[in-house]
Amino acid sequence: MIIDCHGHYTTAPKGLQAFRDSQLAGLKDPKHVPSKGTLKITDDEIRESLENAQLKFQRERGTDLTIFSPRASGMAHHIGDATTSLHWSQHCNDLIHRVCSLYPENFVAVCQLPQSPGVPPSNCIQELERCVNELGFIGCNLNPDPSGGHWTAPPLTDKYWYPFYEKMVELDVPAMVHVSASCNSNFHTTGSHYINADTTAFMQFLTADLFKDFPALRFIIPHGGGGVPYHWGRYRGLAQDMNRPLLVDLIRNNVFFDTCVYHLPGIELLLKIVPMDNILFGSEMVGAVRGIDPETGFYFDDTKRYIDSVTWLSGGDRKKLFEGNARRVYPRLKL
Amino acid sequence: MIIDCHGHYTTAPKGLQAFRDSQLAGLKDPKHVPSKGTLKITDDEIRESLENAQLKFQRERGTDLTIFSPRASGMAHHIGDATTSLHWSQHCNDLIHRVCSLYPENFVAVCQLPQSPGVPPSNCIQELERCVNELGFIGCNLNPDPSGGHWTAPPLTDKYWYPFYEKMVELDVPAMVHVSASCNSNFHTTGSHYINADTTAFMQFLTADLFKDFPALRFIIPHGGGGVPYHWGRYRGLAQDMNRPLLVDLIRNNVFFDTCVYHLPGIELLLKIVPMDNILFGSEMVGAVRGIDPETGFYFDDTKRYIDSVTWLSGGDRKKLFEGNARRVYPRLKL
Repeated sequence: MIIDCHGHYTTAPKGLQAFRDSQLAGLKDPKHVPSKGTLKITDDEIRESLENAQLKFQRERGTDLTIFSPRASGMAHHIGDATTSLHWSQHCNDLIHRVCSLYPENFVAVCQLPQSPGVPPSNCIQELERCVNELGFIGCNLNPDPSGGHWTAPPLTDKYWYPFYEKMVELDVPAMVHVSASCNSNFHTTGSHYINADTTAFMQFLTADLFKDFPALRFIIPHGGGGVPYHWGRYRGLAQDMNRPLLVDLIRNNVFFDTCVYHLPGIELLLKIVPMDNILFGSEMVGAVRGIDPETGFYFDDTKRYIDSVTWLSGGDRKKLFEGNARRVYPRLKL
Repeated sequence: MIIDCHGHYTTAPKGLQAFRDSQLAGLKDPKHVPSKGTLKITDDEIRESLENAQLKFQRERGTDLTIFSPRASGMAHHIGDATTSLHWSQHCNDLIHRVCSLYPENFVAVCQLPQSPGVPPSNCIQELERCVNELGFIGCNLNPDPSGGHWTAPPLTDKYWYPFYEKMVELDVPAMVHVSASCNSNFHTTGSHYINADTTAFMQFLTADLFKDFPALRFIIPHGGGGVPYHWGRYRGLAQDMNRPLLVDLIRNNVFFDTCVYHLPGIELLLKIVPMDNILFGSEMVGAVRGIDPETGFYFDDTKRYIDSVTWLSGGDRKKLFEGNARRVYPRLKL
């Protein structure tokens, strides 16, 4: 089985944005009383939104199962308050649950969290429990910067996050470290904010003892680990200068990179540098880059094709990369 | 000649820090009237600070000339105000000038700018002119985030920066895009803030028409271009989705990457991906990573060694990388 650990519902029916637009309009009206409201989307609309996108690409590219979550840039935790974020997250998560119920062999669910700037992450425990215990979700996306590019929250290694981590460990679910849209004009959302957040999270993990406190806590750093594999020597050297553990020991059971790197030389570097036990196949499909690479004639985000062309990978390596590691990181995945 | 485009005076005599400590103490005293003060450092102290560090490494590694600037993390533009920053920058730059006067064959000078959060970059023109016209400096380090990790300034492509760019073009000097110490606990200075800033600057350049407005403006993005070469496919794809120019055309005469990447696979990726005309040899020596790599037995930041071991580089490529490109980007370099 080929498991893609990184897919977002970027093609959701218009009803989702209609709800969000109405929610945001309410925020501008001082007399408006926030309420959860309802989402008007039919099953047929859901089917249609997937058949010509994610499902078509699964078939064409030969992948089987996508670990699927709400659109990352749509989370926009910086908008409104914790109630705004809760209502929005619940709708987004319920919609993912409907997707996974309609296509149980193609999608398995990961949830958005109702984070909000300045609100402790413990506030997200209830929604995580609802998604995992009631709806069968197998993980969550954790935003290290709910402010959307102002980076006002404490680092991921701060005790601020610990109550949420305790719940993650108890439920045995990992988190993908994933920021959302940037509202800071310095940072392009998918071109720099995403990559920067990945690099930032890794360096936070490198400089603290988080995994001594939580040996069973697991994070996926998406987008091939941001800038980390390219600068692996820098990180090995910094760790050494600071008397920190070897990187391979630091990440062994706790930090994993996906393969969302959109050209062969980048994928080759990733596979050469990062231990094979710490890489999960992912494509971010349909996501940040939607076009076809004129140099290859194939979609930029068809990352399986790059991996398939790396001749020195053993059969055992491929098995880990495409399936085994995902099953280890997401033990609630039972398919 | 082998020109290292990225060296900082990280080993300056104690007198420099003594001045800075006294300056910072003054900031805490409401009755203190800021004055430039004096730096107490002898020529012998300067010689001693370099002989066993930068000069020793130049000899051992077989490099000739270092384009040399004040310690980047020491700039700390977020501390104090524009006057604090001016006094501090002038002392740092004067010290670099003394280094280059003592060792005119080993070092050529690049200046720190007296940036300060909220103060327009035009405020730095006078110090740039002083350094270039009076002291023979050949470039500057421009901090895209004088706030030190809060990213409160407009993007580098904003007209906010244009008056300073006009002066850079008039003087025919390039800028290395280089942030300083981070005062945001999310960002480790050399492990994430530096790399993020590089990635951020590149994406800013990609999404705007800055180089249409300034065809002769030149930037060096250090640390191997941050996360950019590793994600070259992502950037090519984003540019295509946004109807932006091809990356090779976008960067051709305006954006250059150094080779401060501390392991062979990273260097190989850089040299394979980025046009050879847009790469300048650099080591960041003595800088972010000071140790010896136990896997190779050599210093992590001995980047010349990695390049030397890339067998497929032609003689012409080496000449560009080690000398020709630097002369093109820094035309005031006359040695």
